[in-house]
Amino acid sequence: MGPHPAVAAIRLAVRRVLNDILAEHGSTLAPARAASAGARDAVRAQVAVAAPAAPAGPGPLVLVACSGGADSMALASALAFEAPKLGLRAGGLTVDHGLQSGSDARAAEVVQRLGELGLDPCESLAVTVGREGGPEAAARDARYAALDEAADRLGAAAVLLGHTRDDQAETVLLGLARGSGIRSLSGMAAISGTGGRYRRPFLALDRQTARTACMAQALPVWDDPHNTDPSYTRSRLRHEGLPALEKALGKGVVEALARTAQLSRDDADALDAWAGQAESAVRDDRGFLECAKLETLPPAVRRRVLRRAAIDAGAPAGSLFARHIEEIDRLITGWRGQGAINLPGRVVARRQGGRLVIRQG
Amino acid sequence: MGPHPAVAAIRLAVRRVLNDILAEHGSTLAPARAASAGARDAVRAQVAVAAPAAPAGPGPLVLVACSGGADSMALASALAFEAPKLGLRAGGLTVDHGLQSGSDARAAEVVQRLGELGLDPCESLAVTVGREGGPEAAARDARYAALDEAADRLGAAAVLLGHTRDDQAETVLLGLARGSGIRSLSGMAAISGTGGRYRRPFLALDRQTARTACMAQALPVWDDPHNTDPSYTRSRLRHEGLPALEKALGKGVVEALARTAQLSRDDADALDAWAGQAESAVRDDRGFLECAKLETLPPAVRRRVLRRAAIDAGAPAGSLFARHIEEIDRLITGWRGQGAINLPGRVVARRQGGRLVIRQG
Repeated sequence: MGPHPAVAAIRLAVRRVLNDILAEHGSTLAPARAASAGARDAVRAQVAVAAPAAPAGPGPLVLVACSGGADSMALASALAFEAPKLGLRAGGLTVDHGLQSGSDARAAEVVQRLGELGLDPCESLAVTVGREGGPEAAARDARYAALDEAADRLGAAAVLLGHTRDDQAETVLLGLARGSGIRSLSGMAAISGTGGRYRRPFLALDRQTARTACMAQALPVWDDPHNTDPSYTRSRLRHEGLPALEKALGKGVVEALARTAQLSRDDADALDAWAGQAESAVRDDRGFLECAKLETLPPAVRRRVLRRAAIDAGAPAGSLFARHIEEIDRLITGWRGQGAINLPGRVVARRQGGRLVIRQG
Repeated sequence: MGPHPAVAAIRLAVRRVLNDILAEHGSTLAPARAASAGARDAVRAQVAVAAPAAPAGPGPLVLVACSGGADSMALASALAFEAPKLGLRAGGLTVDHGLQSGSDARAAEVVQRLGELGLDPCESLAVTVGREGGPEAAARDARYAALDEAADRLGAAAVLLGHTRDDQAETVLLGLARGSGIRSLSGMAAISGTGGRYRRPFLALDRQTARTACMAQALPVWDDPHNTDPSYTRSRLRHEGLPALEKALGKGVVEALARTAQLSRDDADALDAWAGQAESAVRDDRGFLECAKLETLPPAVRRRVLRRAAIDAGAPAGSLFARHIEEIDRLITGWRGQGAINLPGRVVARRQGGRLVIRQG
């Protein structure tokens, strides 16, 4: 008898990602370790719910970022099980955001559980959450800064994150609410961060499977009260918005949103590449954008060229909205002698003698 | 004192679209009519809520499709007010779907109300609704077929439709639920149909403005029971899904969805254009798709080329899903000698000697 189907599912998802990491870092593996990977099919067949032997040796280190919640505890358990079989070392990190009293004790408990799974090293990272961009964005920024620091310090090949397909669906809806185009619909990437450090093995897996896998392995999980706090947008979306949408549109909504993320990401990448090529083609020999050439571009490409140009000139990407780009675009497609346009970051766009001049000051 | 702000808003929206129509059909206008359009700024300033003079003369005919509901009654009233000032004839159509008892009497009443607004001709179009694609799709197909027939017969330059920004937001969410990519997120076009016949002047206007404009003009409106019938997906979305989403994400959701529609449409158009150009570049001199060349395309463009090729070979567009295209794509990007792939419409895709062969049979 094999493991519980939910446990098999989380392990398969992690194994695929670990194989990718191995393929990228394979040359650093000692021969003995690489050989042990070949034995994994035999191991796969045995009933093995208990913690495997502690990882050791010179293989690449893969870390898991774990809050103690079901998704990341499931991820930690699958990493602890799969990594040794592939000759990888596996460790765990948890972030103490310091936002609730007793969060340090909670983090210490998570570290202990990660250790009990056989992960080594295991660390709690204490961070100070600022206020910039709202509570959720500030916590996220602090968290990733701490994870980056630890991954660098420990020389990790990758950091696994427990985001599920349900998280992805929520992220797409959050992006939709910004109304800023398909890039914001593309959700979280399976691979992200500097050098592709962050990996999300569960992005195609539903949250319920992760939760079931924890129960099947008798893993204690901690439900972060933030996840049900209606003062958080994501929490409202999870507990009210998305269920209402499912009720109206049918059960396939989460999957459809996740698929939309992938398709939108590919589309946005292709259009960004096109805009990159187009940008050099529409500049004159002094580097100014030629309005006549801009006008011949498809609107979707032209808007991206204008956005890139504004950012190059010093406008902060996060403050540059669709309406700013629309206004610059009207200097091209709706020219009636209008004056200079003020953009964020003291950047000014104006049309001068058939050229579009975008510069600071 | 000018008209009520809501009335001013609906008239402005209609006037903009009528000016576009005039610009396209301007050459067919008699000089006297064209001149009368020049006087419209003076007319604009007067308080004019009552029905204007009946349109007449040889100007282009613009029709409004009216269900008797608030959106399309507001549209009809604005058309009746604006068209004569621009030298346009204005008429009205209503469709009797025959789905409720007494629908013929209801349609006759709408025709009478349209006549009272000064629209001429006014017609009720009786249709038989089939079953194909579900009740909503079948009703829509029957409705547009009848509108097309009437527009052809009456020689109309355009048919105005009362879809609002709220309808657009709902359409985007319905597209999102399909998870089939950005084309399905692009909602309804401001201009659509053969020769750009259908125009949607209210696409940037909220439903409440249309309703307020009807009240301000004391126009009786009819609330279609289908709009509140929870057995209809759109109705569930309108009354439960979207309000819950607004509660979670904030009041700007409808506007964000409408903006997403416009941005997605432009993006989808640009990528379709790219795929069109790419398709000829990746065919060999016998017209077969070369796998090596396909592989160099960005995934978003390659998938569109494959979709076009499958449709050209006879696969019905409506039955061709993302998973079909993914499977064909793996013949290019994940080639390991797999066999032929069966697609809808008895179309088969296979890889032969570095070529992708997609054909029926």
